[in-house]
Amino acid sequence: MSPADPPPVLSWLADPPGPAVVLLDQTRLPAEEIALRCADVPALVAAIQRLAVRGAPLLGIAGAYGVALAAAHGEDVAAAADNLAAARPTAANLASGVRRARTAYEQSGGDPAAALAAARDLDREEAAASAAMAANGLGLVPEHARVLTHCNTGSLAAGGHGTALAVVLAAHRAGRVAKLWIDETRPLLQGARLTAYEAARAGIPHVVLADSAAGSLFAHHEVDLVVVGADRVAADGSVANKIGTYPLAVLARHHGVPFVVVAPTSTVDLGTPTGASIVIEQRSPSEIVSWAGAPIAPAGSPAYNPAFDVTPPELVTALVTECGTARPVGASSVARLMGRE
Amino acid sequence: MSPADPPPVLSWLADPPGPAVVLLDQTRLPAEEIALRCADVPALVAAIQRLAVRGAPLLGIAGAYGVALAAAHGEDVAAAADNLAAARPTAANLASGVRRARTAYEQSGGDPAAALAAARDLDREEAAASAAMAANGLGLVPEHARVLTHCNTGSLAAGGHGTALAVVLAAHRAGRVAKLWIDETRPLLQGARLTAYEAARAGIPHVVLADSAAGSLFAHHEVDLVVVGADRVAADGSVANKIGTYPLAVLARHHGVPFVVVAPTSTVDLGTPTGASIVIEQRSPSEIVSWAGAPIAPAGSPAYNPAFDVTPPELVTALVTECGTARPVGASSVARLMGRE
Repeated sequence: MSPADPPPVLSWLADPPGPAVVLLDQTRLPAEEIALRCADVPALVAAIQRLAVRGAPLLGIAGAYGVALAAAHGEDVAAAADNLAAARPTAANLASGVRRARTAYEQSGGDPAAALAAARDLDREEAAASAAMAANGLGLVPEHARVLTHCNTGSLAAGGHGTALAVVLAAHRAGRVAKLWIDETRPLLQGARLTAYEAARAGIPHVVLADSAAGSLFAHHEVDLVVVGADRVAADGSVANKIGTYPLAVLARHHGVPFVVVAPTSTVDLGTPTGASIVIEQRSPSEIVSWAGAPIAPAGSPAYNPAFDVTPPELVTALVTECGTARPVGASSVARLMGRE
Repeated sequence: MSPADPPPVLSWLADPPGPAVVLLDQTRLPAEEIALRCADVPALVAAIQRLAVRGAPLLGIAGAYGVALAAAHGEDVAAAADNLAAARPTAANLASGVRRARTAYEQSGGDPAAALAAARDLDREEAAASAAMAANGLGLVPEHARVLTHCNTGSLAAGGHGTALAVVLAAHRAGRVAKLWIDETRPLLQGARLTAYEAARAGIPHVVLADSAAGSLFAHHEVDLVVVGADRVAADGSVANKIGTYPLAVLARHHGVPFVVVAPTSTVDLGTPTGASIVIEQRSPSEIVSWAGAPIAPAGSPAYNPAFDVTPPELVTALVTECGTARPVGASSVARLMGRE
């Protein structure tokens, strides 16, 4: 496979030996570009849990295709939907993507084609949302910007070119990005592995750093803008995103640097009233105390490993969605974006 | 070797086949407790540069013994001293420990025993300073304290029981430590590898976390006190310490949690006027973009890898030394501690 042509991030395979969801296995990047064929829902759930596919909007699409897969196999769609939605609790999109395909299936009287059509619609809509977010966010990026980002928010995380990284890509194409600082994003290194991979492919000048080195960049006035994605935005504008996002928001505030969140409205959950009501996924201590199977802490060391943290709306300069930008961020501006005001 | 009896952290070996400095190789911990014999200065310089021995006060002791080693071998002591002092630029103690042994050697008219005696004096004084810091810092630890620390500041980093970790150990023995939160401390994981090792040996209840997860602990009111060491304290009270310290100081301030620095006066350099004048060691990008020899970012990814950051005095609640505590921290309280006022 040429470097210009990796496998698709996520696709539906209709051909025999039967339908399947095919993923670019993100756990193998950047070393290998491996297509992972999930022929049934348990395989897809396992792929979601071990982060072979990840990123809130992309999880929504994967979940919808998962429902289509169960339907195509004539399986219990309700049970499959529950299993898919529970695979990771924090991403708002996973549950909503699953719900959308399931509802379409049920309203059609059990037509597998209806579930698949719903998944394909969601896929297309998320790509369109990415383009709209890029356009809406571009104006927040100054000339010669040194932009700091965390985790991965590109085409490996969402439809189209992604969320926050789609804004960076648009700004790069407009000649505005002097440098993209990429937090490595412990423990699973989505920044070093995935964002650096996407930045290199797109020709964006970039530098990887340990998450804890971001403070020095702020102190030396080397950051003009922070842009990150979101896994769930609560009705009050609180943002759950990859662990390590909140410390960046505090640093950005301390140094007077804008902190911008880019997420499609599918990530906003008006059913989650505040940040405190967001369920934070706790992952295995093994992700902290071992690396590639080898221990990096004494045997038996306990570890704290929340997958996400919550940034309160007062630390978020702007929330960019495909429907527009909330600024300042709060319950009323979020409601307005969602057409509820 | 029994778990209760690892090799000494740093010792002088007078026996044939000739004098040597013997180190517990900290790069192999916690998996293996290996004694590393440095028979000449280049071997010791290499050990310092690859962090087989580390921690500002311990580097001072190692540097002094290194001068004694050069003297014992009849080598060019001035050249050896320069090489030792330059091995790592940020630690104030390394240069001062080297200078002390070299001055003793030169003032004795070139007696190797004088250099060795100076190194041994420094070693003893640092152990005494550790005990005094523990006593001075104990009063800053509340009952049932949940203490957050960064990097390693125990007996693997300084004389005696160390600096910040000596305070934690004293508080633990006084029944005051409910939990020690240990930042893993990327990129070289001195927290996960070394502090968790020391905490486990001492029976201190502890939990390891990714550096970026500390923000969530503050947000959930799970931290009562931050205690860290220092690699260099400037005359104005600015603190250079392991990369990732400054973001903790900003988080602590944002959440109203005390941020305490524990360091012997040998770490204070009145010749460094401010934080801006501290030389920050930049280490190899390979520490960021690879792990155990395997790439964790795309080939050729540039990386930013400062070994230390600088915390301004206004973010430091108290500076605990063996001579007393500066609180608030600033030029005048630091001068008072150093007997210069």
